Amino acid sequence: MRIVVDAMGSDQRPVPDIEGAVMAARHFQEHAASLTIVLVGDQTTIRAELAKQDTHGLSLEIVHASQVIDMREKASRAVRAKPDSSMRVGMEMVGKGQADAFVTAGNTGAVLSMATLHSLKRLPGVRRPALTSLVRVENDRLVVLVDLGANADSRPEWLVQFGIMGSLYAQHVLGQSQPKVALLSNGEEEGKGNKLVRDTAHMFPQSGVNYIGNVEPKEVLQGVADVVVADGFVGNIMLKSLEAAGDTMFRMLRRELSLNPLRMLGAILTRPALRKLYRQVDPFEIGGAPLLGVNGVVIVAHGRTNAKGVKNAILQAHRAVEAKIINAIRQGMATYDGLVVEEVEEEGGTPPKRRRRWLRNIFHWRIRPRRRRPRGRKASVVN
Amino acid sequence: MRIVVDAMGSDQRPVPDIEGAVMAARHFQEHAASLTIVLVGDQTTIRAELAKQDTHGLSLEIVHASQVIDMREKASRAVRAKPDSSMRVGMEMVGKGQADAFVTAGNTGAVLSMATLHSLKRLPGVRRPALTSLVRVENDRLVVLVDLGANADSRPEWLVQFGIMGSLYAQHVLGQSQPKVALLSNGEEEGKGNKLVRDTAHMFPQSGVNYIGNVEPKEVLQGVADVVVADGFVGNIMLKSLEAAGDTMFRMLRRELSLNPLRMLGAILTRPALRKLYRQVDPFEIGGAPLLGVNGVVIVAHGRTNAKGVKNAILQAHRAVEAKIINAIRQGMATYDGLVVEEVEEEGGTPPKRRRRWLRNIFHWRIRPRRRRPRGRKASVVN
Repeated sequence: MRIVVDAMGSDQRPVPDIEGAVMAARHFQEHAASLTIVLVGDQTTIRAELAKQDTHGLSLEIVHASQVIDMREKASRAVRAKPDSSMRVGMEMVGKGQADAFVTAGNTGAVLSMATLHSLKRLPGVRRPALTSLVRVENDRLVVLVDLGANADSRPEWLVQFGIMGSLYAQHVLGQSQPKVALLSNGEEEGKGNKLVRDTAHMFPQSGVNYIGNVEPKEVLQGVADVVVADGFVGNIMLKSLEAAGDTMFRMLRRELSLNPLRMLGAILTRPALRKLYRQVDPFEIGGAPLLGVNGVVIVAHGRTNAKGVKNAILQAHRAVEAKIINAIRQGMATYDGLVVEEVEEEGGTPPKRRRRWLRNIFHWRIRPRRRRPRGRKASVVN
Repeated sequence: MRIVVDAMGSDQRPVPDIEGAVMAARHFQEHAASLTIVLVGDQTTIRAELAKQDTHGLSLEIVHASQVIDMREKASRAVRAKPDSSMRVGMEMVGKGQADAFVTAGNTGAVLSMATLHSLKRLPGVRRPALTSLVRVENDRLVVLVDLGANADSRPEWLVQFGIMGSLYAQHVLGQSQPKVALLSNGEEEGKGNKLVRDTAHMFPQSGVNYIGNVEPKEVLQGVADVVVADGFVGNIMLKSLEAAGDTMFRMLRRELSLNPLRMLGAILTRPALRKLYRQVDPFEIGGAPLLGVNGVVIVAHGRTNAKGVKNAILQAHRAVEAKIINAIRQGMATYDGLVVEEVEEEGGTPPKRRRRWLRNIFHWRIRPRRRRPRGRKASVVN
């Protein structure tokens, strides 16, 4: 197996990226996994950084790429304007079958647009790829949260697909049988939620996944569901809120516990407990968000990641490749496509309003040229 | 001042409601505030519960109401079907000027629909009332978060009004001068967010508030803004995520710290620190969410509230009445209405698409009867 790592991805590039890659390579060596890590980026920089590390006996390669996509760059322009970026060169190795997975802590927008439109393309039937995170909940279980921000303003049928892809991920990569899929909402009761959630709730029962209804954030953390589906904007707000709450609490706790000697003693005694708790909320323990729905394993790590985060993202990529997740999603989507057609014809699963608007657009486009009126007369359709 | 408390609001009614009211009455007595608390609900139940408490010297009244609106009831039906509910009787005392504020831990949907459509009505110019929460952030500051779920699927102009009302609340009730108003989004950069956030960001600069752009959940907890504006669905998810994260962490911590004697000793030594931290995340320290935009002070406490939560909600009501928040919002809205007209005419602040759709709807309504076609011919507008 070959996993390509973007050496120039993170905010503090190339240090965490390369250090994380070395940590992962050592992990694989220790576990006798036959695996090569390919570092993509400016070769002089990579060599200089690798020279500081102990790389003895590790299976590492370097592939040169002269350009770097910055965090602040506009994604679509960066993708087009920088054909020799580390991100593009690395992802295309996966696209061309020269490697099995790509890991980057780079600009998420650029990853998305490059994977979807250039280097990998969507799997057949997938309307929108989605970013997927694993959230560690009570009893150390992992919950798949999808979408985390690939799609703000989603449509119900996309959310259903996110649920299917998330369910396949939970099943194949995390080894859960019959994963329970739920919709993130502001109340468990049916009928709660915004329009998107209510519309999606109507479509889910026909999707073939083990759909259990709505969950609130509290239930997400209780592990009521194995897969939690949300619009990208909402999922992002939830994940960032959970991260921010954990972060703030630990920062305050640290401050409070260093206020006087008694508390400091208490802190020492409670250290194992606090450390275990911190592991729970530390986002870098998970490492990265798989981008599901494109034709290749792509894991996006946090821009602010440390080396441990990059290492864990690489480990995640390894598990996803081992589990043959791409094939699983390809097959799952083919089955689902059949389901959708059935459902629309038999039950009118798409909400009537959306269907009508779609019809109107079709009519509109066809008919407009013929129906344009002379100036001065009021048009009935101002569009 | 007279504050009406729904004795039959909370999930564990009437205990936390009545106990909280007694606690608040004692607080006011101790602080020599001339204030009467009116308990509304079944008088036998209230008398029985009050008999268990020490009410000596407290200014408490009872008003009888024979019906109770349950948490699970559909709001609109409950409001109509139960004219003698504690919620309705209590709120109408405010509507008729017999009391200054209403506090309930009851069904939020019913509170909203009763306040907006029946007992109080909206203030002039207010498109949608909004639920507002105070979030305690770093350095013990309070941040106004609006909307918390009164409006899933909001429109940009509503969000701008939420910002104005939240800003007036921060200024008048919390005493902040020039409160900084921000939009909750998945990234600080301009252009981030879903369509609603991007459209609203265009309108905010003309609103007259001290608008500072987008904030992420992390920045909310850092206290970057004094007022954070969100669609009700998204705001609800954020607040519930923060609450759930705090709750889960404390539950895990409690379990971990009781695992062995050393840790238990550590827990005793760190207790003041943990207690201070808990105060930070305990939602009942805040007590309730003011419903802004209706013609009367209404505070909605959490259904799962304890007595302390009810007490704090009553204290919040007291501060809001003292600050004359209703007058402030009435005046603020009058000014804003002027701004909106100006802005649409001069700058085209409403995004073009929405305006065009609005125009089309007007044309459509006017013209449709004339334009109906005979059956069999295709209509150009299927709506």
